[in-house]
Amino acid sequence: MRTYDLFENKVFVLGGDGFCGWPTSLHLSNHGFEVVILDNLSRRKIDIELGIESLTPIASIQQRIETWQQVSGKKIGYYHIDIAKEYDRFLQILLQEKPSAMVHFAEQRAAPYSMRGSQERRYTVDNNITATHNVLCAILESGLDVHLLHLGTTGVYGYDTHLNNIPEGYLDIEIPQKDAPPITQTILHPMYPGSVYHTTKCLDELLFYFYNKNDKLRITDLHQGVVWGTNTEETKQSDKLINRFDYDGEYGTVLNRFLVQAAIGHPLTVYGTGGQTRAFINIQDTVNCIRLAIENPPSTEKVRIFNQITEVHRLIDLANYVSRITGAEIKFYDNPRKEAASNELPMRHEQLEKLGLTPILLEQGLCEEVSEVAKRYQDRCNLSQILPTTKW
Amino acid sequence: MRTYDLFENKVFVLGGDGFCGWPTSLHLSNHGFEVVILDNLSRRKIDIELGIESLTPIASIQQRIETWQQVSGKKIGYYHIDIAKEYDRFLQILLQEKPSAMVHFAEQRAAPYSMRGSQERRYTVDNNITATHNVLCAILESGLDVHLLHLGTTGVYGYDTHLNNIPEGYLDIEIPQKDAPPITQTILHPMYPGSVYHTTKCLDELLFYFYNKNDKLRITDLHQGVVWGTNTEETKQSDKLINRFDYDGEYGTVLNRFLVQAAIGHPLTVYGTGGQTRAFINIQDTVNCIRLAIENPPSTEKVRIFNQITEVHRLIDLANYVSRITGAEIKFYDNPRKEAASNELPMRHEQLEKLGLTPILLEQGLCEEVSEVAKRYQDRCNLSQILPTTKW
Repeated sequence: MRTYDLFENKVFVLGGDGFCGWPTSLHLSNHGFEVVILDNLSRRKIDIELGIESLTPIASIQQRIETWQQVSGKKIGYYHIDIAKEYDRFLQILLQEKPSAMVHFAEQRAAPYSMRGSQERRYTVDNNITATHNVLCAILESGLDVHLLHLGTTGVYGYDTHLNNIPEGYLDIEIPQKDAPPITQTILHPMYPGSVYHTTKCLDELLFYFYNKNDKLRITDLHQGVVWGTNTEETKQSDKLINRFDYDGEYGTVLNRFLVQAAIGHPLTVYGTGGQTRAFINIQDTVNCIRLAIENPPSTEKVRIFNQITEVHRLIDLANYVSRITGAEIKFYDNPRKEAASNELPMRHEQLEKLGLTPILLEQGLCEEVSEVAKRYQDRCNLSQILPTTKW
Repeated sequence: MRTYDLFENKVFVLGGDGFCGWPTSLHLSNHGFEVVILDNLSRRKIDIELGIESLTPIASIQQRIETWQQVSGKKIGYYHIDIAKEYDRFLQILLQEKPSAMVHFAEQRAAPYSMRGSQERRYTVDNNITATHNVLCAILESGLDVHLLHLGTTGVYGYDTHLNNIPEGYLDIEIPQKDAPPITQTILHPMYPGSVYHTTKCLDELLFYFYNKNDKLRITDLHQGVVWGTNTEETKQSDKLINRFDYDGEYGTVLNRFLVQAAIGHPLTVYGTGGQTRAFINIQDTVNCIRLAIENPPSTEKVRIFNQITEVHRLIDLANYVSRITGAEIKFYDNPRKEAASNELPMRHEQLEKLGLTPILLEQGLCEEVSEVAKRYQDRCNLSQILPTTKW
């Protein structure tokens, strides 16, 4: 394990203005890392394009950084840059700043948005793959030993598994041979993406495989579940630090959508039978996980893969739970997605807990989320954002 | 199987001016297809950039098409277009021409070039992935039932397999389960790319998987071996139809390099011990295979994958064979590539033969190749092109 001097330790957060990126930046800054955000603010621009808005009133990136300095006394650096389009400038910044780790959130991250139409499909592939590949090339070209941490998705495993335990990235298999004993191999878990967005995360995984094997880059790929919750210890320290909360049909993740719906008296929008099972993690756990992964870097022997999840739930059970604590009704809608009507998702997630993660589970955090965020900002809710607009 | 009216049957050849694309275009035209070439002439432009040249003197694309019309009475259409960059125009051409099949060669196809440096790595990923994804999006957006045929590579399987029979694309595996019987699955063969170029072909494979599963696109992925030989029945009909022959360290494939070296009295350049084993196919078989795959389109149930190879050889055996028929010496060089010093490559290839392919094997075709091409154009050989310039 590499030893880190935390106070001299610089981390790039690519996409550090986004839903996971911003609380990660603050958390790392709060824990002694020197944080530099690189962001092209594409997430805010897509809001404009779609005519949607975060339920929580988020400050500009400039105000956020200024407020954090007032609150904590700590500086966060910021470059407005599109790393998918400005490779040379990105490399120059990397050589100048010399970070020891880089957290890569700089991808279009909504499955429904990636399936809206041809333009959004192509934007998602071009942006995500070029951004990831530019990151790999820049690290390689810089000659620096930068630990790259990438936010992937549990969706790479697909949602119709028949395994009784989905492993963390690598699967042990046997290959039957004619007239010979079967061959045992450990492979990357086969990839079963369900949207263009998910496909880009699978392509990323193969790029990581190659750049680790051929060029010995140090990489952690975090296969993250659906993130719920809004604020963290740090974003709570000022209204101007508040994190974004998406509840719309494109960017809103399922639990956050339910909470807003409950707060404003809209029925909970369950797609299909609600039999789909997904993995979840609270936003506070997300930032803790990323810090733990930075503090415990992997070897360069192979890509380290963690399932960054803490619990697994069937969506109808979640809807029932939210209904119970809020009194909301449940309404079933035709599923806009091509996916199995129901699935199991038995998924391993020990590695981050071994590094010290103590999960915040839904039952503990959900009531607070309802009263502190969904109810507090319910007047900002735009009803027309709630139903899904993209079908595939 | 779809029935085709061959004379009304239009085929796009993306990259139809290249080493495989040009003879494919002529062969399909000769067999009653209405051929339209789309090409940005990038291969010729890379020659200019690298200061290299085909051993054979190739005519311009305009001269080629004009000559073919004189020789055969058949017209070939041509659009100068970069399909990775001109999506809207590409879609417009597709809607106007309405082809029933599309052969996709429009990718940067040299592993060494893809490993030259950061610029070439990024160009290869950006060009290949965007081109492939634009093709998929355009077919989907057009609403046409276009059969897409893609030229992939046997390199996706990797070159350190321990299987006693590499299947055609799909692998049957067993997944051991705790306290339960093992689960049997058929998966895409795990991907083990050895260069950035090979990685792009793996990414393509996942894109095909998704667009077939989600959007029911009709796709054949041809995992092609190393192509040897130069001319086909059609390109032999005039000097102005001659195919390109690359013998340089970046674009020259191994057997063509040996032939030129033998012709000019240069020692055969064997990398490492020559223990590497590769799959091969003659250029005439390549064009036959593509026609057979077009004439026998797949269902949309899953991506059809063929191993487009006819024989497998250890490189040192090939060098010895060329040496035997030409008297050339063999010289061993440090291997510029990161790869196993030696490997086995037992690979299945029955499906194309079932469709009617009768392979041209090395022992039949090689002597002709030596006298008709390598010796005939030996005066055009530039010695400085012969040794590899890219190491990884």
